[in-house]
This record gives sequence, structure tokens and C-alpha cells, in this order.
Amino acid sequence: MTTADALAALPTPSLILDEARMLRNIARLRAHLDGLGVALRPHLKTLKSVDAARAVLKGGTGPATVSTLKEAEVFAAAGVTDILYAVGVAPQKLARVLALRARGCDLAVVLDSLEQAEAVAAASRAAGDRIPALIEIDCDGHRAGMKADDPALVAIGRALEEGGAALRGVVTHSGGSYGVVGAQALAAFAEQERAAVVAAAEALRAAGLPCPVVSVGSTPTAHFARDLSGVTEVRAGVFVTFDLVMAGIGVCTTDDIALSVLATVIGHQRERGWILVDAGWMALSRDRGTAGQAVDQGYGVVCDAQGRVLDDLIVVAANQEHGIIGLRPGSAAALPELAVGAQVRILPNHACATATEFDGYEVLPADGSAGLRHWPRFRGW
Amino acid sequence: MTTADALAALPTPSLILDEARMLRNIARLRAHLDGLGVALRPHLKTLKSVDAARAVLKGGTGPATVSTLKEAEVFAAAGVTDILYAVGVAPQKLARVLALRARGCDLAVVLDSLEQAEAVAAASRAAGDRIPALIEIDCDGHRAGMKADDPALVAIGRALEEGGAALRGVVTHSGGSYGVVGAQALAAFAEQERAAVVAAAEALRAAGLPCPVVSVGSTPTAHFARDLSGVTEVRAGVFVTFDLVMAGIGVCTTDDIALSVLATVIGHQRERGWILVDAGWMALSRDRGTAGQAVDQGYGVVCDAQGRVLDDLIVVAANQEHGIIGLRPGSAAALPELAVGAQVRILPNHACATATEFDGYEVLPADGSAGLRHWPRFRGW
Repeated sequence: MTTADALAALPTPSLILDEARMLRNIARLRAHLDGLGVALRPHLKTLKSVDAARAVLKGGTGPATVSTLKEAEVFAAAGVTDILYAVGVAPQKLARVLALRARGCDLAVVLDSLEQAEAVAAASRAAGDRIPALIEIDCDGHRAGMKADDPALVAIGRALEEGGAALRGVVTHSGGSYGVVGAQALAAFAEQERAAVVAAAEALRAAGLPCPVVSVGSTPTAHFARDLSGVTEVRAGVFVTFDLVMAGIGVCTTDDIALSVLATVIGHQRERGWILVDAGWMALSRDRGTAGQAVDQGYGVVCDAQGRVLDDLIVVAANQEHGIIGLRPGSAAALPELAVGAQVRILPNHACATATEFDGYEVLPADGSAGLRHWPRFRGW
Repeated sequence: MTTADALAALPTPSLILDEARMLRNIARLRAHLDGLGVALRPHLKTLKSVDAARAVLKGGTGPATVSTLKEAEVFAAAGVTDILYAVGVAPQKLARVLALRARGCDLAVVLDSLEQAEAVAAASRAAGDRIPALIEIDCDGHRAGMKADDPALVAIGRALEEGGAALRGVVTHSGGSYGVVGAQALAAFAEQERAAVVAAAEALRAAGLPCPVVSVGSTPTAHFARDLSGVTEVRAGVFVTFDLVMAGIGVCTTDDIALSVLATVIGHQRERGWILVDAGWMALSRDRGTAGQAVDQGYGVVCDAQGRVLDDLIVVAANQEHGIIGLRPGSAAALPELAVGAQVRILPNHACATATEFDGYEVLPADGSAGLRHWPRFRGW
């Protein structure tokens, strides 16, 4: 069976992963960070796939980043031994952290308050295991974390070290970088990220505390950082597949996007210029991350079944199981004739959000062999 | 273990279903439709749970509505024998339709084109089974369907009946009703829905074609229809749990919402008035259905762990695994003190979208018994 036949035989909606594009994206970021002399700690939250993790970890056992303890548990069971759980830890979750550590995974947690540090220290003492913790630094006012010059930083470091846990370092995430466009602006955000976390590391060291890890990361800043002096590792996740939000800020082009939703035409409203498909927001997700960008891509950019972008064709609206395809506002392009039963592929606004709507990937093999592979995907917490 | 203890012991995020509210919602709509003398064909797409389906079907075997063939397959296996698959059918899906019918389920499909009718007729002839099809009518320009006065309506009916399939009737959905507020406006939409589909039924009958089923449905119109003359059944789905979108247009109050996401506080940004929790959009969904309503509820309304709404507290922003709680803009309320580790419950914008983020419900039993029940949930196509 040829790959085209295999695609045509898939039930729809299905989630297609283009392995060649994925490997190209991985190689690009690795080459950039190698040039800067900094390690990559890939974030595995986008694809949540053991097969994809093997590709991005180059078959190694880490380092890796996760957003849930479920991810930590699955990837640890698959042999990953160096994991950062990069969401502020709730005290109730420390039992699962300790259980994973007891099974041989060097799992570290993130926190930004004295209450959390004391809980981590108490759990460490009770278990006789110094849980490594990184203090989260707020570099852009975007989410969690302490200011680098907050005097409580040192108090938290001491509470960890003196309380029986371990201060592993500092960590930041420039979520604000998603809101700017182009190499110049993204490089400035990367420098802001670097400066904040390096200042925090210096404050801890000046107080006599250890700070072996200095961790930055977001896909946009990872690609446009020009100098990472003082940084020991970079985290990034969505770069593996990219998506329309990343294309919209200039981190990639649509030709780099490795993820698409295969859908089938189920009807038309010809007088309105609509083509209806069987991929609604249940498949595409409700993410409208391009809505605030210069080009609003609706619920996604439409390609033919081979993955070639169709001029100006986007998903203009979505219901639960209906996608409504039309030309983007103002387009002079002709609406293509897509009969009932024809297949299209839709590039997602946000890969993390679209991927979680599916239980697996239908993989177009990078080696060009015929047919598709299936990679399972998990979710949950 | 008390129910409060059982909630406190749940991992977070978890999805909580208040069975008493759910049963009250079901009883309310059934009483309204009984008064109008019309059958309810519940849409099972919201909860995708066999346990919840038993409650809304009152233990019976149908009628029911589904949005995917996966739903049809699961509910048929659980004993439901009368199912309408209410999304326009792709020709490629007819083999699964026939397989379910061969197992004894009276599964009907929906279509709105001659191409589909011919495909359904051909599949019926090949299988020796007259697949019943309903023609979709467009009552509000919102999505799929033909105008009631489209001359192609009769041609499609004939293609079904004469081609070896069965014309089961006509079906419409007033998705536009979600965009208006209040009993008067919703009653007007209900009448528009009724008038369109009854006119289509009359056109078919005038041409000598059968039209036993005349099906309308949306949660807003189902609750506010005042006269359903000529209609044989009403479909509705989200009424089982309701949500903030439905509250925003006046179909229910927040006190009727039976679904909430249990989350744990993981941090604060006190100078910004933010409380961070471990339920981001991966748990709440990206649905921002209240964004265009008079009151924008962000990513959800925040309640205490017992489910009592906290004044003016909403999820103002969401990242993948972080929810940012704050007071709604302009509020004079005091930010409550919620320490790291405290639990909250978040009412969803859109129940269908939030529920699909989870693999099951933790059910607060209607009989008041201590502890929680677990109802599994499925998804996929």
C-alpha cells in the first residue's frame, strides 16, 4: 500500500505527524544550541509520546522536561532518568515525586514560595531523600515565579538546603515571547530571560547557596538567543512540530509544521463559499492562538491530502464535529472544488492543544518507506 | 470517608459531576417537553458516558443522538438501539453504519446533498439494508443543511427512497440560538427552527414522500419552545450539566451547573492579585464561549471546594497546566486567602469542551451517600 493509499484509508479525523519535518526541526534547534554551547532539555508536553521522545532525546535517557507527573511517570517507565517537572509543585503531589525518585528517576520540582519549600523539605526529611528543587524566576510578568531581586529568594534557597531538600538551581520561562514578532524582538526576550535567571543564580551563590542549574526556555527564545552566558540548559517543547502560532511570530514557516489533522469533506454551503469537514473543535481544539496575530488563521490552514497549503483556505469556524472551511476574508483566490468524500489536512494553531485531542499519531515515515506508522499518545495527570 | 475527605484526596485536576443537579436538569427538560407532547432524543455527545446515558435515557434503550460513530458504537454496545448520528455522513463511514445496523441498532444518518443520498442508497443496495436517512435543514444560516424550500429537497428524498435507502425524515439544529439572550429571543429561535423543519416535511409529503420524523434541537430552543406542532422529537445535549455559556444566555443559573474542575492552588503573584492553580487549558479547555457574552467569565467561575461560587473570582488566564485566578475586571470584592494546597472548583464555559479533557467523572452521589463514584468517559471517533 502506498502512503497516499494509507492516508486515504484512515478514519477521519486522524492526526498526521510528518517525521521528516519533525527530525529537521529537532536538528535545527540542536545545531543552534550546540553553537551556543548550552544543553537542550526538551519539553515532552507537546507530543506526549514515547516514540517522539526517543527522537528528540536522540535515544538517550534525558535530560527532559514535563508538565505533569503523569508525563514523568510514563517517560520514567520508558527509561528517561533525568526529568524536570516544570509546573509549581503542590504539596499533595510530593508522594508521587518521591515514588518516582525511589524508582531511580532523578526527578526535580519547581517552586516559588517558602510554603512550598518547607513542604518539599519536610517530605524530603520524612523520606530520607533530598528532593531537588529549582526556584522559579519571573522574567516577564507573565505567570509564576519570583523577581530575581526578591530577598525571599535566598530564604527559600536556605529553607530547601537547610531543611533537608536540595537547591538544584533556578528556572524561568518567557511566555511573553509568544506575543512579539521577528528575530530582533525574540532575541531581546531571550536576553531578558537570560538576564533574569542569571541574576537570580548570582544572588543565591552570593549568599553561599549552590545553584548548579540555570534553566531558561521557550520555543521562540530558544531559537533566537544570541548569547546564553551563565545559562546551563534550554527548555523548549513545541519546536518539535511547530504550529501556526510559531509561524505567525516568525520562528518557523508553514513548511516546517509537522502536525496536521486529516479530515473528510461532508458537505457544502456553496452560496456562502463554505466547505464542511468532519474535523470540528473536538479535533482541532478550541485554541485560537492566531486570533491576536497579524494573520488570523481561524481554526487552521487547509492543505490538500498531500500536505500542500491551499491558497487562502482556512477553517473559518468550528462546531463540535463540524469544521467550516472558506477563503480568508478579502481573498481573491478561487474556492477549490472539494467533493464530498475528499480529504484535506489542516495545520493547527497550537500543536499542544490539537495533539491532545487524539490518542495517537499516524506517522509519515522519514525514510520515505510506504505506509504509515502509529505512535500512541497519552494524556491526563 | 466523608465526601469532603474524598474530594480532598482526589488528584488534581479532576472532573466533578454533581449527580443531583444533573438529575434536576434532566427532569426539568423532560417536564417541559412532556407538556408540549414531544419526545426527547437526548444528545449523548456532552458526557460520553454510559452511566450518564442511563440517567438521561431513564434506563431505556433510546431514542438517542450522537455526534460520532464511536459514540454510536459504544452506546449500542451498552444496549441503546435507536440512535441518530447527527453529523452529515461521509461516504467512507457507511461501512461502520451498516455494521452497527447489522448488530441490531436502528442507526440513522443525516445528509444534505444528492451525492450523499446516492452514496447511502448505493451502500443500502449493496448491503440489502435500507439505511434510514434524515435530510438536514438549515434554519438559521449557521452551519449545514438545505433551505426548506430548496427544490433539491424532493430530489434527495426520491434518491433515497427509490435508490434503496429510506427517507426517515428531516432534522435541524438552531446553533444560532446560542447567540441570543433571554426567554423571548430563544422562543423566537425555537419557532424559527420549528417552522423551517415543518415546512420541509410538508414539501416532502406533498411530493408523495414519507417523512415520519421531524426533529429539532438545541438546548436553548428546547427549553424555550412554546409550541412544537408538527415536530416529533427534540434533541438537546448540554442541558444535562449546563455551563456558563448557557447561564449567560439565560437558559440556566450557575446553581444548575453540574460540572466543575477540581484544582489545587500552587502559587500566588500577590501584587497582581493572582492565585495560580494546577488546572490550565489542558483541563479547562481552550473554550472561551463567554468571551462574546455580556459577562466574560474568562476560563471559568471559581467556587470553593464545596461548590459555592466565590464572589467575582474567575480564571482570568490559562496556560497549558497553569490557571491564573483573579477578580473579574472592576470588581470591588476582596481576593480570598487561598493558601498553597487549597482546593477550588471551576465551573466551565462549555461543558462539552471541558469534559473531553478528562477520562472520567468523579460523581457526587445524588442520594447523599458519603464518598464519590467514578464514571468512565470515552472520546475519539
